[in-house]
Amino acid sequence: MPGSLSREDRARLDAFYRDIQKQVATFAGYPVTADFDYRELFRFLYYPLNNVGDPFTPCIYHMHTREFECEVLEWFAKLTHAPQEDWWGYVTNGGTEGNLYGLYLARELHPDGMVYFSQDTHYSVSKNLRLLRMPHIMIRSLPSGEMDYEDLHETLRIHRDVPPIIFANIGTTMREGVDDVERIQWILDDLAIPESYIHADAALCGMTLPFIEGAPRFDFSTGIQSLSISGHKLIGAPVPCGVVLALKQNVDRIARSIEYVGTLDTTITGSRNAITPLMLWYAIRSRGTEGFGRIVNECIQRAEYTVDKLKLLGIDAWRNPHAITVVFPRPAADVLDKWQLAVQEDFAHIMVMPHVTREKIDELIVDIAANPS
Amino acid sequence: MPGSLSREDRARLDAFYRDIQKQVATFAGYPVTADFDYRELFRFLYYPLNNVGDPFTPCIYHMHTREFECEVLEWFAKLTHAPQEDWWGYVTNGGTEGNLYGLYLARELHPDGMVYFSQDTHYSVSKNLRLLRMPHIMIRSLPSGEMDYEDLHETLRIHRDVPPIIFANIGTTMREGVDDVERIQWILDDLAIPESYIHADAALCGMTLPFIEGAPRFDFSTGIQSLSISGHKLIGAPVPCGVVLALKQNVDRIARSIEYVGTLDTTITGSRNAITPLMLWYAIRSRGTEGFGRIVNECIQRAEYTVDKLKLLGIDAWRNPHAITVVFPRPAADVLDKWQLAVQEDFAHIMVMPHVTREKIDELIVDIAANPS
Repeated sequence: MPGSLSREDRARLDAFYRDIQKQVATFAGYPVTADFDYRELFRFLYYPLNNVGDPFTPCIYHMHTREFECEVLEWFAKLTHAPQEDWWGYVTNGGTEGNLYGLYLARELHPDGMVYFSQDTHYSVSKNLRLLRMPHIMIRSLPSGEMDYEDLHETLRIHRDVPPIIFANIGTTMREGVDDVERIQWILDDLAIPESYIHADAALCGMTLPFIEGAPRFDFSTGIQSLSISGHKLIGAPVPCGVVLALKQNVDRIARSIEYVGTLDTTITGSRNAITPLMLWYAIRSRGTEGFGRIVNECIQRAEYTVDKLKLLGIDAWRNPHAITVVFPRPAADVLDKWQLAVQEDFAHIMVMPHVTREKIDELIVDIAANPS
Repeated sequence: MPGSLSREDRARLDAFYRDIQKQVATFAGYPVTADFDYRELFRFLYYPLNNVGDPFTPCIYHMHTREFECEVLEWFAKLTHAPQEDWWGYVTNGGTEGNLYGLYLARELHPDGMVYFSQDTHYSVSKNLRLLRMPHIMIRSLPSGEMDYEDLHETLRIHRDVPPIIFANIGTTMREGVDDVERIQWILDDLAIPESYIHADAALCGMTLPFIEGAPRFDFSTGIQSLSISGHKLIGAPVPCGVVLALKQNVDRIARSIEYVGTLDTTITGSRNAITPLMLWYAIRSRGTEGFGRIVNECIQRAEYTVDKLKLLGIDAWRNPHAITVVFPRPAADVLDKWQLAVQEDFAHIMVMPHVTREKIDELIVDIAANPS
């Protein structure tokens, strides 16, 4: 590259680097792990890689990682029991894009559909619905963060004239509440609703529940039609990413062929990040399904430990079954800032991600105890 | 990271790396440069950086590059004459997202608006319009790739009951045709249309025309209301990216505040890539406006050289004024494949990007001459 940075700019970058190192030491409020190392892939960052268009079709643009992307998708398809030969997907720029895709697909299939989602749903979903011009109704949440099934039942009952599109949370942002997909299916059956669509936003729990014994089912085996899982959350990545999977029979309806790229225009973005699929591939191949099982179950144990320790101090902490999110009363602003804790109303949460060790938890709890709200 | 790759997987990565090195040597058909080197930034790839939400507002998530992103945006705002204190923007995942944002904004301002775009418009735009459920009319193209202004004039005349939203191409994908924004404004005035919106898709030429003497104006100084410019095209990046800029007074209408991230939810994606803003910052600071001026004008000279050389061989090549795209009759399939040339109907193009040297051009022309269609 012609030209180089000035000494001042280089000093700024150095100072910024030191700040990031400092910040990562007390990072416990987001469902994002800091435990990853992709240095073996840095050599690919000298090239303009691009997974333009559909991952499964050939392309005139040769510098892509489609082959690795397809293996990543296959791994997720297996993990979530997608029906063989009838699934499709791609690596997204994160949960918002995956959910946008699922809702778009649902709308194309049910142009008059009504979307139902709970109060605890991530804020990006109502933005997506506005973008897509989809009518929607917000359902009350239960204290766990789950959808209030009675409210859903009653609301569906009075809107039986339009196909319901259910946006199910498989781990809400603040409390990690998991909507009971089988119960939702039961409600749809009970009301004799002939056509419906369920999209599962499994941003976080798509990478935890499959590894936990006795955890609720949420995937394609329950009859959902699409799902979105984040890559930068439990797996880890320096850049937000994720996967979206959907039934192929549905996707085929909105595919279009583009001559001058020589591929299908099936994805929301056209030119697509080709490094994140390679990173996800690297993580999956180096850790394996077993490795992730161990990582997830260790997080669960540390989350339990966190609740127990907070309770011992008289702090009213709790977590949902199978959750790595510890909910507790909002602490003082200094603690929130130092540990980058997300808050909502009168509560905050600690996300016990792979990099949040017992030592970190102990340190954080000392701060909470010393600085009550 | 626990676990490591198997020997087989490592060998696969090595083979893939060698293939990419080979492919990049004959890469001349996409508006994407291979001339960049961001190794100084790789150290940031060990951290979960995230520019979640609005780049201009504070955030609870501390590991971000907002400060660098804002400087990048300021540089582009100056380059495109955005009105001081009345612009807003963010670094996107590429052109599609920037155009989606511009069209979304236009729709929120003019819910009954009708979108007009030319035949030569990038395929992602009709997908965006379908996503946004916006009614639209395709306008004929001229042989240059520009919009047919008479067709636009006549079509607007019979739809004066709804506000027009003009999607202007500042460099079409295949022929680099530049829609004449001043002429479009004149047509709108001529028809006494009181309310309208112009979005400029300046994916490629947003980074060329500002550096070329005598080039047409397309930016905020002409009265457009938003624009999108790619970052991975002329500047270069290993990952698709870009910037979108819009008038702040318009953007403020669709902003929403989100408590638990402590920021504004103004962007299409929520969690955002924080590495690409840093790369764009690095490129801008190390090359400077002058450096880009030199790079662009060298590309123009080599594009001229390419046309001249092809013509000398009796090949009917041409380029638009100020264009780095050389259009010529579709060559044999082997040549298309080797040089990754995009085609449409009976023609192909060579993109004379910064990495496409005279030596490469000579080599490519030898192949074309030896393998006519």
